[in-house]
This record gives sequence, C-alpha cells and structure tokens, in this order.
Amino acid sequence: MATKIADLGEFALIQRLTEQQKLKNESTLFGVGDDAAVLSAPDGSRQLITTDLLLEGIHFDLMYVPLKHLGYKAVMVNLSDIFAMNGKPEQITISIGVSAKFSVEQIDELYEGIYLAASRYGVDVVGGDTSSSLNGLVISITCIGYAQPEKVVYRHGAQPTDLICVTGNLGAAYMGLLLLEREKKVFQADPTPFFTPDFSGREYLIERQLKPEARGDIISLLTERNLLPTAMMDISDGLSSELLHIAHRSKVGIRIYEERIPIDHETMAAAEDMHIAPITAALNGGEDYELLFTLPIAASDYIQDFPGVSLIGYVTEASEGCHIIARDGTAIPLVAQGWTMSKGFSTHQTNTEIEK
Amino acid sequence: MATKIADLGEFALIQRLTEQQKLKNESTLFGVGDDAAVLSAPDGSRQLITTDLLLEGIHFDLMYVPLKHLGYKAVMVNLSDIFAMNGKPEQITISIGVSAKFSVEQIDELYEGIYLAASRYGVDVVGGDTSSSLNGLVISITCIGYAQPEKVVYRHGAQPTDLICVTGNLGAAYMGLLLLEREKKVFQADPTPFFTPDFSGREYLIERQLKPEARGDIISLLTERNLLPTAMMDISDGLSSELLHIAHRSKVGIRIYEERIPIDHETMAAAEDMHIAPITAALNGGEDYELLFTLPIAASDYIQDFPGVSLIGYVTEASEGCHIIARDGTAIPLVAQGWTMSKGFSTHQTNTEIEK
Repeated sequence: MATKIADLGEFALIQRLTEQQKLKNESTLFGVGDDAAVLSAPDGSRQLITTDLLLEGIHFDLMYVPLKHLGYKAVMVNLSDIFAMNGKPEQITISIGVSAKFSVEQIDELYEGIYLAASRYGVDVVGGDTSSSLNGLVISITCIGYAQPEKVVYRHGAQPTDLICVTGNLGAAYMGLLLLEREKKVFQADPTPFFTPDFSGREYLIERQLKPEARGDIISLLTERNLLPTAMMDISDGLSSELLHIAHRSKVGIRIYEERIPIDHETMAAAEDMHIAPITAALNGGEDYELLFTLPIAASDYIQDFPGVSLIGYVTEASEGCHIIARDGTAIPLVAQGWTMSKGFSTHQTNTEIEK
Repeated sequence: MATKIADLGEFALIQRLTEQQKLKNESTLFGVGDDAAVLSAPDGSRQLITTDLLLEGIHFDLMYVPLKHLGYKAVMVNLSDIFAMNGKPEQITISIGVSAKFSVEQIDELYEGIYLAASRYGVDVVGGDTSSSLNGLVISITCIGYAQPEKVVYRHGAQPTDLICVTGNLGAAYMGLLLLEREKKVFQADPTPFFTPDFSGREYLIERQLKPEARGDIISLLTERNLLPTAMMDISDGLSSELLHIAHRSKVGIRIYEERIPIDHETMAAAEDMHIAPITAALNGGEDYELLFTLPIAASDYIQDFPGVSLIGYVTEASEGCHIIARDGTAIPLVAQGWTMSKGFSTHQTNTEIEK
C-alpha cells in the first residue's frame, strides 16, 4: 500500500503520527496540540518548548529573501510560539544543513540575522548541529522559554462572552509575499542585471514578510497591566485558521466583525492593486506573527486603550459556530484555508488541531 | 568574497559561527561545546538540551536503511548525548521534511521506529514540525534531559591519573557500514529483483550500524554503584576524536593501550576480510554510540568487574600528549579523523571542540 501524503492531507497525517502516544513522564505536562509543549521543573515552574523546520524552496525563496533576514525571521517564528504561551524565550538551538552552493560569507550573513534576533530578544544560542546537505539550505530551530505555572496560556481556555483581541494588523506579510513573487516573475521574464524590483510605497509590506517581529512587547504590556488572557496563540497560518483552533480546543463559538479587523492602509492599497479583497489577506494570508488572544469581558475597560491591540469580537457558545459578521451584517462561516507558500504543506505539530 | 565551506573546514566554520556570542540568561549554564547544553531550573536542578539534524544522502542512505530503523537510530543519537552528560532523557521533539516520493505508510514506518525507541527509553514525544520538502527526507530531533546539579558530567573534568573507560566494543558500526556499502555496490552492478545481500556471520555488525542502542543501562549502573565519572562523552565520531576532545577540554594528556581496546570478533573478522586494521575501525570508525568516561583512580577496584566496561588507559599531564601504546610498546600520537559517511561533513556544535 502506498497512500500519497497529499491524499491523506497534512492534518490527518499529523493525527496519525501523534495520536498513538501516551505521555509517560511527570515532567511532561502538555505535548502536541498548542504553540509549544509545556514541561514542569521540579519546583513547579514551567518550561516551554517549540521547534520549527525551515526548508529552502518550501518555506523560503533565496531569490528574494536575504540570508540575514532569513536568519532573523527563523528566530522570530520560534519566539512567537513562546510568546503565544505567555512565556519568556531564553534559549535556542540552531541546526543547519548547507549545500555546496553556499559560501562561508553567506552562512555568516544567516548567522548575523540569527544573532541580531537573539540579542534583541535576550535569547542565548546554546547549541545545534552543522551539516552539509545535498540540496539547498535546511534550518531547524528549537526554542526554550519559561513561565510561572499560573501564567501559561493555552488555546483551550476561552470562555463564552470573552473578548477576542488581535495585535498589530493582519494580511501585510501575505501582501508582501505576493509583491515579492510578482517582482520575481517580472525579473524572470527579463533577467537584466540592472533589475530593480518595484516596491515603492509598499516597503512596509515587504518588511512584514521578510523581517517580522514577534510580539514580546505585547506580552510585557499584558503582564504590566495584570491582564492574563484566557486563551492565546500566534497568527502564523491566518486569523481564520487560528480562530478555529481556539474554538475547537476551547469548545466555544466565535463571532468576529469584519469592520474591526485591523488592516494597514498599504495592505488595503496593494490588495486593491492586485484585485484581492483585503479581508481575505487578513483572514487567510498568514505569516503575520501577531498574537490572537481572548480576555474575560471584565477586561473590556483595560483593553480599549491598549496600544497595538484591537478588539475584534466575542467568544460565544459552541452551538453558535464560528462566524465573521460582514459590513452588511451577514454572518459568514469562518473557514481555515491555512497558508501554503507554493509547493507544499507546512504545519507545526505543536501548532495543529487534530480534528477539524 | 566567497570562501568555500570545504576550504574553511567544518570546525573552523563552527568556531566562526559560535565564538561571537556571550551568554546572557541566568538559566543558561553551558552553551556550545559539550554533548548537550546545560540549563538551570529555578530550583537549581539541571536540564540538558541536545539536537541533531539527519539528512537523506548525507547521514543515511535509504537504499539500505529501513525507515523503522532510521527512526529508532535518530532517537538513539539524541539520547546518547543526554546519557553522555549523565542525564535522564525525558522529552523529544521530532521535525520531519518529506518529499513527494514518500508514502504515508513509509512515514508510519519511520514513526514506528521513533515511538519504539521513545517507549523503550521512557521518553515522551512532545511536539515537532511536519513539512514537505523538495528533495528527500529531513529529520531534526531535539532531546531534553534532566540531572541533579552535582551529577552533570562534562568533558572538562578529567584529571591526571584518572582511569579511561569505554563501554561495549568499538568499530562494529563502521564495519557494518562498509558491508552495507559493499552489498549496495554488488546490487548496483547487477540489479536483480532477487538480490539478497550477503551478511552471513556479520549480522551483529549490521545491527550495530542500523540499530544502535544508547547506553542508558551504563548510566543506571554507574549511579547504582555510586560512581561519578570526572568526564564523559559519547563516541559518535570515533574514539580518537573523542579522546582528543576530552584531552583538550580537560587540559590533560591521554595514554591508551591498543591491547585494551574492546573489539568484537565479528569486527575483527570483517576487518580482516576487507584488509582494514581492526584498530583503525575502533579508533576512527565512529557511530559506536558507546560511552567514553574517566574515573578517579580510586574507582579502580569497582570498575574491574563492571559489566560491559573496559579500562583502556590513563589520563596524564597535558605535557605528555595523547598517545595510543601499540602492542609492541610504541607510542603513537592519536589523530582525529572523525567520521564522514560519504558526501559531506556533519558535526554537532554541541559536540565539537573549537580548536584542534
């Protein structure tokens, strides 16, 4: 028997690979199924573990991704998962596989980005593995973070009447990707050595795609203001997909409002240029690395003036389902489209709902 | 400028990539430079982190490595690093990148091996990342282990007059690899569907290559007998290379005796068949996943009857250098040849001496 992975589907594959296991060790509190695994130290404090594999041609295209940015982003993707558990990232390991096409100077650039990210976010690089590869660049990063036991925020804690909040704005990284892909095609059609991609007025979108920042600033502000989300995750596969994860894990329904979804004006303009509904980029674009979280309704007064946070809707009973209310008042069911760059699938096991 | 990685060399590359960093977090006790990084929990207990990247065509050849064995071995390689710090492995994360040539059933096989290993050694699979890849199979495993602070054994604790011990026997996995490569060539020269590789009388060597066992049993025995090594590491790149690591890190010299090096009779016979000196396989073969450790000379009485452990020599002053004493009494300097499967280099950052 030979079932194609594409026929089974990525979620079913992960379910198949992870469902059989029973956790054995006392130190293992939570395994597959959230942004990070949660371990318990003997004194009860919590440790968070997340890992990401980045493969050339699947997760990044070196035709337009500078290696320094790639290193920076590879770290951000991991830090974002730790922040999404309300943790503080402190260590990372970096493994790389490098084919013969790469020079030492190029690997230096990659590490420049890695160390810049590590240094800005106060994280130590504590180990890794360095190997040659037959084809292209492989990057595997594991991040270790810490939290007090009562401060860890899972996906499963949302309650009906909770407020739903997102940080920053959504859809910008996706529009940045489309612009980069567009300019790549322009170049490929006429590969002149003096080619300059046209990103004028869209620099913010390119930056959101190439150099995202994990929202540790929001985690600090929430702590300062004594606000503890009931559920939280980072937005890597698109808002729709992540809301459905929270709904499923928390056994609740979701009601968000189109008019409340934060979208930057550059995202708006670029979407219009490219004949895409901006809300589609915001809901399904992915790679935002913003935070999605829920708060008890009592936090309502505190969140209104919270810088960089938008209140986009409410948690409901599960029976009410998951909907976005369009500007005309229509309730449209949320659908997870997830995010695939081009050739494949890519799903965190620690970031994946098993069932729909 | 474009310096080839091959010209710089793997050790110099790792030095270049890791030397610039100062560790910042209190929880980071020890970073790059041993079998695993050492972190400190708030209560002072120690956590050990190690990670390995395994790439198809570099680390394994699916022409003769069954996927179940590969999964098992991938876990062993990581557990071995935790045992080498005198720790107890408790969690692993598994990231895989899979190209379209793999079926769901094949990935099942890989995971069968992973779970078999995890279950036998009491380890929980707590997360990971699943992705498609353009070419072949990528496996990245991170392992987390635990130890009491006074029980962590580094590479840097060996003292002159200490005893040098190894577990099991050496060179068998390397001879297994040579046999597998030989039969692969036989098959390639005449690819008949009824081809049966000839491993008769060499099954043990094949098993040592395809299905190594990390020596957790020895770690348990050492603890039971109240023996705490002064230095320890696992033998993955060959005994010579590892002895030089310990010598460098501990600032000592090494004196081992050829006649004391444990070599299985199948290794002897296969080496003879293939016109290789068995001692070369034992010193430079690699992939033994045995433990190399040093003990205070006072432990001499306790180690003589220690099952599965051989006393192979003594630690000396650094000024005496690192030598193996041949059967005829000649002192031959130890040289690190390391281990490369075929096409590339592969070095753990956490497993690497920076300087020669």
